[in-house]
Amino acid sequence: MADNGKKKMVEAITPMDEDFAKWYTDIVKKAELIDYSSVRGCMFIRPYGYALWENIQKTLDGMFKATGHENVYMPMFIPESLLNKEKDHVAGFAPEVAWVTIGGSEKLEERLCVRPTSETLFCEHYSHIIHSWRDLPKLYNQWCSVVRWEKTTRPFLRSLEFLWQEGHTMHETATEAREETERMLGTYADFCENYLAMPVVKGKKTDKEKFAGAEATYTIEALMHDGKALQSGTSHYFGDGFARAFNIQFTGRDNTLQYPHQTSWGVTTRLIGAIIMVHGDDNGLVLPPNIAPTQLVIIPIAAHKPGVTKKAGELEARLKNTCRVKADYSDNSPGWKFAEHEMKGVPLRLEIGPRDIENNRCVLVRRDNREKIEVSLDELETKIPEILASVQQSLFDAALARRETMTYACTDLDTLVDTAKNKPGFIKAMWCGDEECENKLKEIAGVSSRCMPFEQEHLADTCVCCGKPAKSMVYWGKAY
Amino acid sequence: MADNGKKKMVEAITPMDEDFAKWYTDIVKKAELIDYSSVRGCMFIRPYGYALWENIQKTLDGMFKATGHENVYMPMFIPESLLNKEKDHVAGFAPEVAWVTIGGSEKLEERLCVRPTSETLFCEHYSHIIHSWRDLPKLYNQWCSVVRWEKTTRPFLRSLEFLWQEGHTMHETATEAREETERMLGTYADFCENYLAMPVVKGKKTDKEKFAGAEATYTIEALMHDGKALQSGTSHYFGDGFARAFNIQFTGRDNTLQYPHQTSWGVTTRLIGAIIMVHGDDNGLVLPPNIAPTQLVIIPIAAHKPGVTKKAGELEARLKNTCRVKADYSDNSPGWKFAEHEMKGVPLRLEIGPRDIENNRCVLVRRDNREKIEVSLDELETKIPEILASVQQSLFDAALARRETMTYACTDLDTLVDTAKNKPGFIKAMWCGDEECENKLKEIAGVSSRCMPFEQEHLADTCVCCGKPAKSMVYWGKAY
Repeated sequence: MADNGKKKMVEAITPMDEDFAKWYTDIVKKAELIDYSSVRGCMFIRPYGYALWENIQKTLDGMFKATGHENVYMPMFIPESLLNKEKDHVAGFAPEVAWVTIGGSEKLEERLCVRPTSETLFCEHYSHIIHSWRDLPKLYNQWCSVVRWEKTTRPFLRSLEFLWQEGHTMHETATEAREETERMLGTYADFCENYLAMPVVKGKKTDKEKFAGAEATYTIEALMHDGKALQSGTSHYFGDGFARAFNIQFTGRDNTLQYPHQTSWGVTTRLIGAIIMVHGDDNGLVLPPNIAPTQLVIIPIAAHKPGVTKKAGELEARLKNTCRVKADYSDNSPGWKFAEHEMKGVPLRLEIGPRDIENNRCVLVRRDNREKIEVSLDELETKIPEILASVQQSLFDAALARRETMTYACTDLDTLVDTAKNKPGFIKAMWCGDEECENKLKEIAGVSSRCMPFEQEHLADTCVCCGKPAKSMVYWGKAY
Repeated sequence: MADNGKKKMVEAITPMDEDFAKWYTDIVKKAELIDYSSVRGCMFIRPYGYALWENIQKTLDGMFKATGHENVYMPMFIPESLLNKEKDHVAGFAPEVAWVTIGGSEKLEERLCVRPTSETLFCEHYSHIIHSWRDLPKLYNQWCSVVRWEKTTRPFLRSLEFLWQEGHTMHETATEAREETERMLGTYADFCENYLAMPVVKGKKTDKEKFAGAEATYTIEALMHDGKALQSGTSHYFGDGFARAFNIQFTGRDNTLQYPHQTSWGVTTRLIGAIIMVHGDDNGLVLPPNIAPTQLVIIPIAAHKPGVTKKAGELEARLKNTCRVKADYSDNSPGWKFAEHEMKGVPLRLEIGPRDIENNRCVLVRRDNREKIEVSLDELETKIPEILASVQQSLFDAALARRETMTYACTDLDTLVDTAKNKPGFIKAMWCGDEECENKLKEIAGVSSRCMPFEQEHLADTCVCCGKPAKSMVYWGKAY
């Protein structure tokens, strides 16, 4: 029974090396993160998937509030005339929105789009409440869902509707707004590295890749197990473009009328996809302890023997203040339970059986490297946090080492094309700054510019593509 | 300056007795809860309004989780064919939904409604995951926004889009499902009474007033300051109607195929409207301490005098573990600040000036009854929680006393009609159980049945309307 259980769970996953895309969708289903719905491109986020999002949300929300941001809620509909106010923005988004044309059985005079992002609504509100420099800065954020009419969709990575947070801020000066843009990118990077154990490259998007309507877009880019990049969070500086379009003006300290400077920044449920593809393995999900809904699962061994279930219950109650703990009392076999909680990526498992009880000890098993650690029951309160911290660090180290191994510096075009074709990962190469070269690299090597990293390196004097003088080093890659 | 400030804030509110509706909208604007948007019937929920919702959400979410419920997220769109599956449900909701007919520039083959409520989506998901009695119960909840195409709208009370939570559960037996329905109504009642300081009547809706598709709807009804009722939360028992329509079946303990029994229950941002209309006065909002974003505001008096601002800062830091505290260091006058924080309903104000510092004391002023209490600075940690608890209790007691004063028992039709016309409030009267009598009372007295309270009283033997034998006592009233 134990082995059957184990096989049944494990067999259902396609090995990562055989078919990465299939491996991914197997995990999202088998780890019970999502269920497919009959609504094209939309998903049911199940309790375990949503618990992950709640932990992401709680942590980030605390970080936002600690830096003075306040939460608000804007309508989910944007009248067409409002969306049309900023021309670059509407050009970028209009082709991929959903339109409400009928309400309460009647055709609407003006159709409403379901928000793909809310700059326009925030600007409308800001135009009502910003009058003086004393009203600035405004540091608002909202947690909501948005809709973008994608043609092909994948759970968490690209869906018609997704959950996110969008910060929208207004500042007295361009300098302050730029600082905010970088501060929030830094917040995202800290969060990804310290909570998701996922190293990221911080950088600036090229003009071709920037957000519709932004003057500059900053990004954090992470490398997935299959060598593809995932844009994991973005932060935009808008200058006063929207402010002019929406006529938002304030009286400055010098008594002149001025336009405020704006930012926006967001991360989405995509981060759950990132966790899967950075840490997962052929046994399923592997969750970083700092974000895992359950950090420790207690599994009674030979639970029918006297005292075992009782002891498991005692340990569960005792460890509640030490970590996020759960005991599995179901009547499945231990083998089944091992496989199930491995599939769900629980960072640490505690096995407790009659002989363990006799000897006042238990066995702890790490999810990441399957190491078994025998521990006295008297030491649990100190050992468990130590091991969880070690799992967290190991996951980060492994992801960083993999990224470094899979990052290739290329100084000539042939090498770049060859690398792009044969070696999944990031490519670092110099660039002249022309969109033409970006287009050409996309065409012949299938890679797009991920970002111009803040930490620049001088690999060569000339653009890898056209040979003209290089302006910056760029990370290139295939991306989700 | 002090007086000017005060007047400016206060003059802007219409007195409650002069025009209750105007008083209400003055408060939602002046207390900075909302701003109107150009999207008809939708509003911007501002930081102070959203902070109230966050407190409601956090408290209720904890109560839901403590009773075993898990959060999930369902798509915001419902394909027309899915909405059509349960015939009573679609008949109730189809006339008031918004339809997406165009996505990504193309006309959709099947239009999608923006969820007015999510029974259909939960049922689709449940049909995928419920197979055995071991899969039951399923106790799911989601926090999201929903859309109902209302013709006339008012902030928080009736809007096109509103925020809410919707619990959707599935059970092995009808008994269990009914127990869940009542348990969650009880949770709502506890929350309203203990956090919002708002007494509620618990009861069952008549068939005419029940939810589309439900076998039974339970409700909590509260009385507002103007004598109108507000339905503040509902809980529905569905039997197996949806389960049959969606073909959700499980193998029971006896190995037969069975349909599970279903509930749903929800509260909305309407509760913020309730707080305003139960506790507010002509100086603005009055917030129950248990839900107030700021429980204590510290106001430095003669802040330019040496040591005053410093002392305010010390007190703010010191009291962080005692209550939700904020000091107002703005350069407005104390009078302006008094008026502003009264408008925002902060339960308690601490005034600290040079003479107070000299005497090691301060003045605490209650928002509810404006009582001034001189307190030694050494006693703040004990006095403040005591006073906040007393404010909380006083608000509840006052609301309960008002409701009792404004509840009239009527045993004949003329008295009922006269009471309905001249005495705002609840009317208790016996009812035969026929919808005809409900319609007649609506027509001639302008009242609808609010609920058949769980705590029945025998006022008479016969229906107040038709004189036939009475089946139950009903609360009647005008409602929001």
